Amino acid sequence: MKTYLDCFPCFMQQTLRAARISTNDETKIKKLLDEVGMMLKDIPMESTPPETGEIIYKKIAEITGNNDPYKKIKGQNIEEGLKLYPKLKEIVKNSDDRLLTAVRLAIAGNVIDLGMDKEFNIVKDVKKILKQDFAIFDYEQFKRHLDLHDEILYIGDNAGETVFDKILIEELPHSVTYVVREIPIINDVTIEEAKYIGIDKLAKIISSGTTAPGTILRLCNDDFIKKFNNASMVISKGQGNYEGLSDVNRSIFFLLKAKCPIIARHIGVKENDIVLKGINLNV
Amino acid sequence: MKTYLDCFPCFMQQTLRAARISTNDETKIKKLLDEVGMMLKDIPMESTPPETGEIIYKKIAEITGNNDPYKKIKGQNIEEGLKLYPKLKEIVKNSDDRLLTAVRLAIAGNVIDLGMDKEFNIVKDVKKILKQDFAIFDYEQFKRHLDLHDEILYIGDNAGETVFDKILIEELPHSVTYVVREIPIINDVTIEEAKYIGIDKLAKIISSGTTAPGTILRLCNDDFIKKFNNASMVISKGQGNYEGLSDVNRSIFFLLKAKCPIIARHIGVKENDIVLKGINLNV
Repeated sequence: MKTYLDCFPCFMQQTLRAARISTNDETKIKKLLDEVGMMLKDIPMESTPPETGEIIYKKIAEITGNNDPYKKIKGQNIEEGLKLYPKLKEIVKNSDDRLLTAVRLAIAGNVIDLGMDKEFNIVKDVKKILKQDFAIFDYEQFKRHLDLHDEILYIGDNAGETVFDKILIEELPHSVTYVVREIPIINDVTIEEAKYIGIDKLAKIISSGTTAPGTILRLCNDDFIKKFNNASMVISKGQGNYEGLSDVNRSIFFLLKAKCPIIARHIGVKENDIVLKGINLNV
Repeated sequence: MKTYLDCFPCFMQQTLRAARISTNDETKIKKLLDEVGMMLKDIPMESTPPETGEIIYKKIAEITGNNDPYKKIKGQNIEEGLKLYPKLKEIVKNSDDRLLTAVRLAIAGNVIDLGMDKEFNIVKDVKKILKQDFAIFDYEQFKRHLDLHDEILYIGDNAGETVFDKILIEELPHSVTYVVREIPIINDVTIEEAKYIGIDKLAKIISSGTTAPGTILRLCNDDFIKKFNNASMVISKGQGNYEGLSDVNRSIFFLLKAKCPIIARHIGVKENDIVLKGINLNV
């Protein structure tokens, strides 16, 4: 997905929000706004928004000296998720369609996105998404692909969300490889948190090598690109990965909640819609 | 009121919104975002936000060639107001406190602000504001000042709002001077619209000489500054005038709805609160 005009004010808004979490020094925050403002002219409309996100968060780290401003909140989100985990397992167990419930929960976890200017309440959001109609619901194709493939490359998104991914992965008899970011970027999941959540007991964890808040192939390492190209089935979580992968020429299933109006429009849904969308499917 | 950090993303948002109303040419809009982005570093935090507004809207006119992008919507707002006018007069006539009802209506008109990223529905907003509690309600002082003074300098804000100001001015037995902007800026009122609405039948209309979307004294003409300093009583409508005049050392009554969270915080109220606030009052 390319950059839209609406992304530019949003880049400034994200800068301000992340800067405030990184430092209390208003002079540094103003300097950041100045520098990002000057950078805007160099952002090609053809680049994906997470590429700019990467540059902005690097600039924030450079000016504030804080490499992981979301560390604390990320930890709290994970603990909140883990506290809910037994209850979520119960919900899956008692549901008519365990897989679908696990898919819904994996999408519910996608609300834990600190890059967005949106409040979330994970307990309320879980309840809502368990009942919400899908705006795009390629569930039959999803099940068909699960039947046809033994291995899944599962691209994670936010750290707190990984607890919810765990629920879905536990429903899959497949050999799963779980993909994380190379370094902390916004509240995205890294190897450290994926292990803490226990994904390593269920799946192989690999880093895509990216330092952007999304999966942009040309910013990923060769090992990941090879695995991505050769993977028989790919599940991609969240907006950042969608932005990077929406135009890639291979089959992918996107699971996400459309939190940004521009991404929603790109997918062809409304803001706050939930989506299970397959692209480039041959069966 | 000075510029706050939150104003910077908002300047970009305003640029995009106004640019889109001015032109359909995405290349021009991108150029505008680039140029405003580069300008941000030169905005002193000590300047008032309408000063930056002036520069941005001049830049929009320069790049798009459109000097009055809001002309059409402004006209529609005025017609909508004029259509409501007989009904509004009826409401005043049937109220227990005609003056207070007229003050409420003058504030209700303040929702017609196209510089804000807020939807408004004038009929619904009038109904709401007629019943809404004031967050600051210096009504006793306001009445006392009305009793003590024969002349009022009444500083207008948005063009559609002027229909609602007319209702209040008609309740005042005073000699009123109604102040407008020098040129069209956002949807602010100019001499042309004030006359069309019939303010010239009730008051003397003068321009403050400003081309900013607010009253910043150093950008006003000498004639206005003299009148402002010598006026026995000043009524100032809306946020843009508040931003310019909040730190001025003379008595002023501000009538407004706090639509921006930053201005609301500066006044000491919440977003969407309505305010009748007097400053520097000796009685």
